[in-house]
Amino acid sequence: MAARPVHAPPREVVLAVDIGGTKTAAALVDRDGALLRTETAPTRAAEGPVAVVSTVAGLARRLLAGMPVLLAGVGIGTAGVVNVSTGTIVSATDTFADWPGTPVAQLVREALGDLLAPDAPVVVQNDVDAHAEGEHRHGAAAGAASVLVVAVGTGVGAGLILDGNAVRGAHHVAGEIAHLPTPGAEHLRCPCGRRGHLEAIGSGIGLHAHFRWLGGDPLIADARGVAAAAADGDPIAQRAVSESAAAVGRALAGAATILDPERIVITGGVPKIGDAWWKPMQRAFVADAIDALQSTPILPGVLGDDAPLRGAAASAWRAI
Amino acid sequence: MAARPVHAPPREVVLAVDIGGTKTAAALVDRDGALLRTETAPTRAAEGPVAVVSTVAGLARRLLAGMPVLLAGVGIGTAGVVNVSTGTIVSATDTFADWPGTPVAQLVREALGDLLAPDAPVVVQNDVDAHAEGEHRHGAAAGAASVLVVAVGTGVGAGLILDGNAVRGAHHVAGEIAHLPTPGAEHLRCPCGRRGHLEAIGSGIGLHAHFRWLGGDPLIADARGVAAAAADGDPIAQRAVSESAAAVGRALAGAATILDPERIVITGGVPKIGDAWWKPMQRAFVADAIDALQSTPILPGVLGDDAPLRGAAASAWRAI
Repeated sequence: MAARPVHAPPREVVLAVDIGGTKTAAALVDRDGALLRTETAPTRAAEGPVAVVSTVAGLARRLLAGMPVLLAGVGIGTAGVVNVSTGTIVSATDTFADWPGTPVAQLVREALGDLLAPDAPVVVQNDVDAHAEGEHRHGAAAGAASVLVVAVGTGVGAGLILDGNAVRGAHHVAGEIAHLPTPGAEHLRCPCGRRGHLEAIGSGIGLHAHFRWLGGDPLIADARGVAAAAADGDPIAQRAVSESAAAVGRALAGAATILDPERIVITGGVPKIGDAWWKPMQRAFVADAIDALQSTPILPGVLGDDAPLRGAAASAWRAI
Repeated sequence: MAARPVHAPPREVVLAVDIGGTKTAAALVDRDGALLRTETAPTRAAEGPVAVVSTVAGLARRLLAGMPVLLAGVGIGTAGVVNVSTGTIVSATDTFADWPGTPVAQLVREALGDLLAPDAPVVVQNDVDAHAEGEHRHGAAAGAASVLVVAVGTGVGAGLILDGNAVRGAHHVAGEIAHLPTPGAEHLRCPCGRRGHLEAIGSGIGLHAHFRWLGGDPLIADARGVAAAAADGDPIAQRAVSESAAAVGRALAGAATILDPERIVITGGVPKIGDAWWKPMQRAFVADAIDALQSTPILPGVLGDDAPLRGAAASAWRAI
């Protein structure tokens, strides 16, 4: 066996970044997908693209300080609709000032300067797509050829992987299950302005809106409050949780009938309500899905907050 | 220029077959996708797989008689859910006796005997998928990377092509938009036994069922009759056509929000009703689709009955 060289070449890592509405997380990730070091900072979304990118660069500098590593690439998951080919934001919610049109890949490369070799890739995708890639590479969907990953949180998002590849769509919005017309949501307005979409009842905000529409206690201010009231036996809160979850199950049956994925993975804050949410969701899926799809596994995500970072890292390693 | 040899090698063709519930069509198709000769015969669906396959072989013999061609492969589109890898029927409606489990590829190869070289491919897929492949290769979706082809006839079927490839699904049922839970269909039972699916209101049978549910004339026996009554000014028939079409538009908006296809192509008998169907369908799509999808083209298919044959032929040529 050869002696180990005194000056080993520096270990290669990628920088993984998750730019959310309130928080930006970044990590150094090795080839096996292990998060070596993680840092977070508030996302200065209201201050515009330069502030958001400067936060990313600051996190990168903190992570790399004193680390004997070589930065081989960058993978970014970000809020907003992303043109993956160009690394540019197509559209975004108002939380992010001037985010649409931002060439994120280019700005991050410039901001990192000498930390990144000119030929090292900077891959940008939507944060839910990064989340899906993480669960597909390392989590609940590992080994599946196709998976629909649905995040049910403040809003509803989804990432779609078929034949091992992320489906992006002709207008970069594939997987937007949030806007599936869903029976039982007709009385509620979706953030997109239309009525009857899944997000209007299935998201955390939608769950709370449905609770209020049912005549629930006006002092309860959010989905967390509705979940707590349901656990305490409030019948209106229990009905709201059950009907919100059933809308998700019905939408999943619809998505499954179109996509026929090998697995469905559910992540996000709302499913953490527990059985009071999962049972009506699964009942609605079974009631609406055709026989061939009844056995499609619907699994909770296993990577939690690490999923977008691990997916972003995987996207960078794929490009190297 | 060299003189043409006296004994030119025989022209290579494939046999394309479309096995429908009432009729089986077959054609010889050249490499450019042109149908050289077509023959049809009644499908003896109730008599079982041997009768169905024997009809296919009979059509092949009639087509090939006296033709100086070499049969390079076979492409088949058939009613039923198909395992494309094995060329076997997974499930089917009751119209076809004992069709589930039938190894169609193997039986057709055996029935063709010496007409087909042992190494020539026999490719079997669902008829709507063959239809979609035809429109994608030669018709309304030519040149598009992704397309959803929806056939609205007696039932509702769909074929899905993403990144140029047909999506089959983990249980061979991808594209089954028929069973999308669709607002406005809750009062009608789908052939699958559940309520509220698109097919329950959007198919020809669904349109008629909705007309009857609205209190329409019991002497009108089918969708064709409802369409004629609507054209004659019957307000219930007009409402039934409009609401059936709107359900399709709403389901397309839902499918588009999940898939974000470059184009949507509509085929089948029901859209032949004309503006009275297309306008409410498109209004519902525009009302429910998010901004990014508003411009998705929804086009009528252009190949008509030739589409499944041309798609089946394309599948055979791809395998050669």
